[in-house]
Amino acid sequence: MRMYDIIKSKRDGRELTAREIEFFIEGYTRGDIPDYQVSALMMAIFFRKMNKEETANLTMAMARSGDMLDLAPIDGIKVDKHSTGGVGDKTTLVVAPLVAASGVPVAKMSGRGLDHTGGTIDKLEGIPGFNVSMTIQQFISNVNKTGIAISAQTGNLAPADKKLYALRDVTATVDNMSLIASSVMSKKIASGADAIVLDVKSGSGAFMKDDQSAFELAREMVEIGSNVGRRTVAVVTDMSQPLGNAVGNVLEVIEAIDTLRGEGPQDLKELSLALGAQMLLLGRRANSIEEGRNMLEELIKSGKGLEKLKEMVEAQGGDASCIEDTSRLKKANFKLAVISEWEGYVESIAADEIGRAALVLGAGRETKESKIDISVGVLVHKKIGDRIDKGEMLATIHANDMQRAQEARQIIMSAYGISGGIVEKPKLIKGIVASDGISVF
Amino acid sequence: MRMYDIIKSKRDGRELTAREIEFFIEGYTRGDIPDYQVSALMMAIFFRKMNKEETANLTMAMARSGDMLDLAPIDGIKVDKHSTGGVGDKTTLVVAPLVAASGVPVAKMSGRGLDHTGGTIDKLEGIPGFNVSMTIQQFISNVNKTGIAISAQTGNLAPADKKLYALRDVTATVDNMSLIASSVMSKKIASGADAIVLDVKSGSGAFMKDDQSAFELAREMVEIGSNVGRRTVAVVTDMSQPLGNAVGNVLEVIEAIDTLRGEGPQDLKELSLALGAQMLLLGRRANSIEEGRNMLEELIKSGKGLEKLKEMVEAQGGDASCIEDTSRLKKANFKLAVISEWEGYVESIAADEIGRAALVLGAGRETKESKIDISVGVLVHKKIGDRIDKGEMLATIHANDMQRAQEARQIIMSAYGISGGIVEKPKLIKGIVASDGISVF
Repeated sequence: MRMYDIIKSKRDGRELTAREIEFFIEGYTRGDIPDYQVSALMMAIFFRKMNKEETANLTMAMARSGDMLDLAPIDGIKVDKHSTGGVGDKTTLVVAPLVAASGVPVAKMSGRGLDHTGGTIDKLEGIPGFNVSMTIQQFISNVNKTGIAISAQTGNLAPADKKLYALRDVTATVDNMSLIASSVMSKKIASGADAIVLDVKSGSGAFMKDDQSAFELAREMVEIGSNVGRRTVAVVTDMSQPLGNAVGNVLEVIEAIDTLRGEGPQDLKELSLALGAQMLLLGRRANSIEEGRNMLEELIKSGKGLEKLKEMVEAQGGDASCIEDTSRLKKANFKLAVISEWEGYVESIAADEIGRAALVLGAGRETKESKIDISVGVLVHKKIGDRIDKGEMLATIHANDMQRAQEARQIIMSAYGISGGIVEKPKLIKGIVASDGISVF
Repeated sequence: MRMYDIIKSKRDGRELTAREIEFFIEGYTRGDIPDYQVSALMMAIFFRKMNKEETANLTMAMARSGDMLDLAPIDGIKVDKHSTGGVGDKTTLVVAPLVAASGVPVAKMSGRGLDHTGGTIDKLEGIPGFNVSMTIQQFISNVNKTGIAISAQTGNLAPADKKLYALRDVTATVDNMSLIASSVMSKKIASGADAIVLDVKSGSGAFMKDDQSAFELAREMVEIGSNVGRRTVAVVTDMSQPLGNAVGNVLEVIEAIDTLRGEGPQDLKELSLALGAQMLLLGRRANSIEEGRNMLEELIKSGKGLEKLKEMVEAQGGDASCIEDTSRLKKANFKLAVISEWEGYVESIAADEIGRAALVLGAGRETKESKIDISVGVLVHKKIGDRIDKGEMLATIHANDMQRAQEARQIIMSAYGISGGIVEKPKLIKGIVASDGISVF
């Protein structure tokens, strides 16, 4: 078997066999197949696409390219949750403790962010002492003890995906649904999930800018899941504006805690309930979405969700008193208000621009080597549909550098679109994609 | 300007600007742009194609990526000749002396072969003492003195093309007309041609397997020529069987000498006259093809073509007595006859297979490092349309190794297709492509 023939096959529109896909992924992971052949194949796939079987085979080949986490020592159905990423997306910090409190084990590996803010792992590091680097033994033992653990990727999970993604990123071959979907799913499968709930974002702050492509990606991932024997459900959700109000690492941790207390923003709560209910259904803890939602709402009211978060923080060496008293978390040195110069209704918020403002402040990484400032960020006070008067606050900037704060303010000002007439709030949950069908709301 | 954006532009079907093409070729030649980005671009070009302007720009960017030979010190119109390559193609050895003898200067850079036999340069090295490595000064001075010089590539001609071709070869991105055509034309332009006559081969022994793609490639190259101000004519010719009878380096030199004596095979003579007449027309030495052909035939009859070959050999340090007495050239140790087991008419000869037999004997290079055996090869006695009886000789193998000779015999036996009924000889000249139109014969 030769890589040349595999490239030519795909170039000429033929289907790749399971053996060809394994040969290419194994050879590339070992370093026997050079980047320049792989990028040519990726471009051929961009034009010729892959069918369901090829996509499933690619996913499994990438999952098997490194360690395959065995979560069998944990009782119950391990349900993972994954978001395609958006601005202000701290949902995991709310959903994971709630689901764990309901009795479904949450064994979650999360990533660091290379984006406007850090990833879940970066955000959790905002809690003093919190340890995100666990051995697999610790990780499993913590889930068995407290029902929950969130760790940075341990071991060598799906190295082929990592290498392939870095290559696609510089050769304009990212934009292919099969490749995007197999990248996400290979990591989830390697990290041992029995079932997967996906949050596929759509809008200016998301990778998928419109609903059509978001639904397409959702369908692609759900198909992979059913082809490789992992029950998978995708919820397509709005990312035309930041989720909740907080964008920035510690600011988002505080907002998640508020939400677990029943005091968070409505959209974050709503999304957490929607995703959590799907997880309870897949984890066979609830028999319907309705039942799952009710259970989760109850766990907020009773404070048991917040309690579970504290348990996890303690079990992972963090200072749980910060959860009780969030004023103990690291703060930025000063705040700067963004004041509206117009009056009317918020018609649009360019979510990606709010993300860029956070990045300018230092909340995210511009390169892999950048160091995140966990204390900075943006609090957005007005969202789409809200009434705003001249002189009212649109947002508050939390910053450690005045010049960057000024720059962020300019970006935020320009990110807002104000209309004279009343504006309807966007629908948060756009639809559900499951293996047995698609519901569009 | 970023290579990423150039890849994405072409991927999305946009036309590349002259500046983008220069940026990519310059960066790639310097080594600033990595192979993996270039192979992705090549695959995007495979799918999206390039228009005439892009192709012309790519050609000139590659031509300018290294030295541009200045042949101004040579008086007259410098007409170059290029063949896309075939089995038994020793035409340059006949045409170049004839054209030079007519008064059109021939300043020809030729390549070594990576194929069934060597290139023109390898064949000339079959003449003892012949020097193919000249400085540019020697090269120009020889043309001014004797009207002809054939040298291996001197200087650093079109290095971008060399690098790009090697990459395309291993990434299944060779098969694109614009890329093939610009590769050929960039080298011709860098080597200083004012006008170019192309011999585009079509058939089993050629790169283009059918007439349609041969005409397409011819049109593409002629268009580049007129777009960059080089008068270019392409002759599309048959390569469904070997050209002439000899396949192998010294064997081909002998056949070329025979042809200059008026004793060579009819097809080689016919092709040499056809290409030579076009060169005389472009070089303004003849006013019509008819006139050109007559001049060249006269130069064969008078022996002036052969005389010119001897002059060149002497001027380049070779033993010219070998031209008078070809028995002085290096011979293989033994001959092996290929005897027909059938009777009838030769219906087909798989030219590529005859080439493979020569390669097995050692006449060509399997890798860049292989050493050529100049003495070995195949003499084909029966061509398409010829009557053959059982027990008659199809071919003679000239070999230095009995085992290889046996293997070559098997290949040659299988390469012949014999029919019971009479078979028509294939048309040698299939058509002419010029900037003002296409004539199909």
